[in-house]
Amino acid sequence: MTDEILTTQEVFANLQKLLNTNNISAFRETFLDHHIYDQSQFYLELTDSERLALYSLLSPEEMSAIFENIDFDEIDITPYLKEILPEYLSAIFDEMSTDNAADILTKLNKRERRSIFTLMAPENVTEIRNLMHYDEETAGSLMTTEFVAVVANQTVSSAMTVIRATAEEAETIYYVYVLDNDKQLLGVISLRSLIISHDDVLISDLVNEHIIKVDVEEPQERVARYFRDYDLLALPVVSHDNLMLGIVTVDDIIDVIDDEAQSDYSGLAGVNMDNVNQNPFQSAAKRLPWLIALLFLGMGTASLVDHFDGLTSKASVLAIFISLITGTAGNAGTQSLAVSVRRLSLNDEQNKSFFSLILAEIATGLVTGAITGLTIFAVVSFWKGNIMLGLAVGVAMFCAITVANLAGSLIPVGMDRLGFDPAVASGPFISTMSDLTSVFIYFSIAGIFIRFLS
Amino acid sequence: MTDEILTTQEVFANLQKLLNTNNISAFRETFLDHHIYDQSQFYLELTDSERLALYSLLSPEEMSAIFENIDFDEIDITPYLKEILPEYLSAIFDEMSTDNAADILTKLNKRERRSIFTLMAPENVTEIRNLMHYDEETAGSLMTTEFVAVVANQTVSSAMTVIRATAEEAETIYYVYVLDNDKQLLGVISLRSLIISHDDVLISDLVNEHIIKVDVEEPQERVARYFRDYDLLALPVVSHDNLMLGIVTVDDIIDVIDDEAQSDYSGLAGVNMDNVNQNPFQSAAKRLPWLIALLFLGMGTASLVDHFDGLTSKASVLAIFISLITGTAGNAGTQSLAVSVRRLSLNDEQNKSFFSLILAEIATGLVTGAITGLTIFAVVSFWKGNIMLGLAVGVAMFCAITVANLAGSLIPVGMDRLGFDPAVASGPFISTMSDLTSVFIYFSIAGIFIRFLS
Repeated sequence: MTDEILTTQEVFANLQKLLNTNNISAFRETFLDHHIYDQSQFYLELTDSERLALYSLLSPEEMSAIFENIDFDEIDITPYLKEILPEYLSAIFDEMSTDNAADILTKLNKRERRSIFTLMAPENVTEIRNLMHYDEETAGSLMTTEFVAVVANQTVSSAMTVIRATAEEAETIYYVYVLDNDKQLLGVISLRSLIISHDDVLISDLVNEHIIKVDVEEPQERVARYFRDYDLLALPVVSHDNLMLGIVTVDDIIDVIDDEAQSDYSGLAGVNMDNVNQNPFQSAAKRLPWLIALLFLGMGTASLVDHFDGLTSKASVLAIFISLITGTAGNAGTQSLAVSVRRLSLNDEQNKSFFSLILAEIATGLVTGAITGLTIFAVVSFWKGNIMLGLAVGVAMFCAITVANLAGSLIPVGMDRLGFDPAVASGPFISTMSDLTSVFIYFSIAGIFIRFLS
Repeated sequence: MTDEILTTQEVFANLQKLLNTNNISAFRETFLDHHIYDQSQFYLELTDSERLALYSLLSPEEMSAIFENIDFDEIDITPYLKEILPEYLSAIFDEMSTDNAADILTKLNKRERRSIFTLMAPENVTEIRNLMHYDEETAGSLMTTEFVAVVANQTVSSAMTVIRATAEEAETIYYVYVLDNDKQLLGVISLRSLIISHDDVLISDLVNEHIIKVDVEEPQERVARYFRDYDLLALPVVSHDNLMLGIVTVDDIIDVIDDEAQSDYSGLAGVNMDNVNQNPFQSAAKRLPWLIALLFLGMGTASLVDHFDGLTSKASVLAIFISLITGTAGNAGTQSLAVSVRRLSLNDEQNKSFFSLILAEIATGLVTGAITGLTIFAVVSFWKGNIMLGLAVGVAMFCAITVANLAGSLIPVGMDRLGFDPAVASGPFISTMSDLTSVFIYFSIAGIFIRFLS
């Protein structure tokens, strides 16, 4: 589709020309013919005055579809909202699905929000206000309230009438939820099974009561896991007392899976990946905070080496292995960190105790440390013809790796228990910190062996 | 849902008891009542003899559903296939969707495959053979041939008859594809728009001809991007001459997005994340190859430090800053690597030239290097009261960071151009290699400044 993407760019230039020459009908015809995603990409490329021209050419409904398609976690459109006339803006929010409207409105301050609410349909305001109460990154914050519901003692044909009537509004009609009179969730029917059934069959005979559902406060990673494991297109969200509140759809889950992976990856690299296409100055501004902060942590290591100056001047051979030990321990620490972060974000480790996780990582550290230590012991003893030096470096390597593995798991697991995102612990941080402990371990052990060295 | 997960485990124990006591009807009733995902998890937990008992209690169709649900990239079930009677096994493959059957059969050798094919329905064998021709990680390898197709001059009601007839077999019925008499793809209609239309409307009046489709050889990351951007549930796959070949569905794309993120992350950490729940010995076995390989690369750095022994003995103060410079350059290199890998896997960088990518990263390196170099110049000059020492360390830091940034982008971009997966270049590899260049740069620059130091 490479050539089609090229044409899209040409089409954008053409559209921009039509917009600027105020060629209304030609613009509308070409523009509305495009997929909503392309429309929203076009919208985001416009200048201030072009955007104002666009608002005058599109209905609130057409504009709302564009807003639906923008990923507000990546692009902040709140400044744009201020340029839109209040009547037009509130009409846009009235047309949007409630979950997306709530997502944008959360980003405004109370006063701005209230002024939009006063112009909106009251029933939409109530629903949006309810959605805004749910914590970020929970099922509640992902769900939409626009789903199709039927009751158990309906026939298939009457259910199909309900579906046809709500098809325009509903986020998906491919799952139909069966509720009792108290709005409690009883089960689900796929549209597939409805259309292959006879008109006069009762819903109660078709309903699947083994329904997979989530609590409104369930964290979003857990919700994503249900989609992945059970190959779902939508998942119902219920309150503590099984009241049907809304549904989460698979398109929102793709964004969640993407964001979660991105955040783990960003953490490991010690650089925020939100927007990788930036100019060198923007990129540098993103990377420097970590680099400079770690530089000062590294100064700690430097002054530790300085502190052990007496030792290095007695046996200058010691200086040779500093970077080897810090580097290898740093690598081991990074591996341990990465595995721990991934474990925490992928699995239900809630059931496993803090200590069993840490113990497993210490054990892994002991095994890798022992084998790496033995290897370097053999290499150094042979290279420098000094078994005691080999022993000092080998034992130091063994201890440094074990400690680095411990730190690599202890820090993310600890942060997770304290309620922080474990992905914030970065790879560069772990390896810089392990430099410090490795140098300390190395010189402490070398101090014991000093009379056999040089 | 934590308590439900617990019950699942209890249910598993109960099921296992029913299976072992050969309580056929009770077992079938309880087992088949569970979601396919849970059935497949149960299957994977069984012992050899329990699996044999299971085969005798389930029909090939029931067993095929279980096979459909297993992720063959993560779990190798080919050994299990050998324990299954050939007639039963070929019946299972006949019941499976062709894409999943092809996925498993690719893993067998030619002889094994042929013996299964001889017992299968010829039309299924032809389709599976066709699917097996497509390269891994392309649209062709992800697609299934079970989609719903109608022609343009049909009415809605006759299209609904086609849909009802194929609903059992098709992977999804929520998108209906409109083909001409030569099987060329003309457009798509959603089931949603079909069920809200009158029975006698013509398909040609409803069809959306601005269809998003992919070529059968399109790489899977690109396919995943269409799903993400356009919020699709399924995407048609066509040949070079627009012949409709199959569809890719969103559940397979979730696995692709997951796998891609996992592989980028594994690369950055220098450890394969395929299975994070292993015992310490298995974990150590996974991590040691990288650690030991990098240990020998690190020995290069150590012998370089050894080589510059004359310099350190003249000015022992130089030893203090080795780990600071190698550590900081390693951090910068890791950031650069991470951004480059992500850029390559997220975006169409095909259009950007090799050199513009590398140049951008060098520019970022120059900016971060200059600021970090100035910082360390100020700190060292002040700490050691020696401006020339500060200058030596600062200039070395500047050069080391620029080189590390260059390496961090050059290696993944180069691997990508040569057709390798850029994610294979690991963070620990970049930081260990940058240790070597940093030490070389540091001592070379210190050599110039040597008469002002000590």
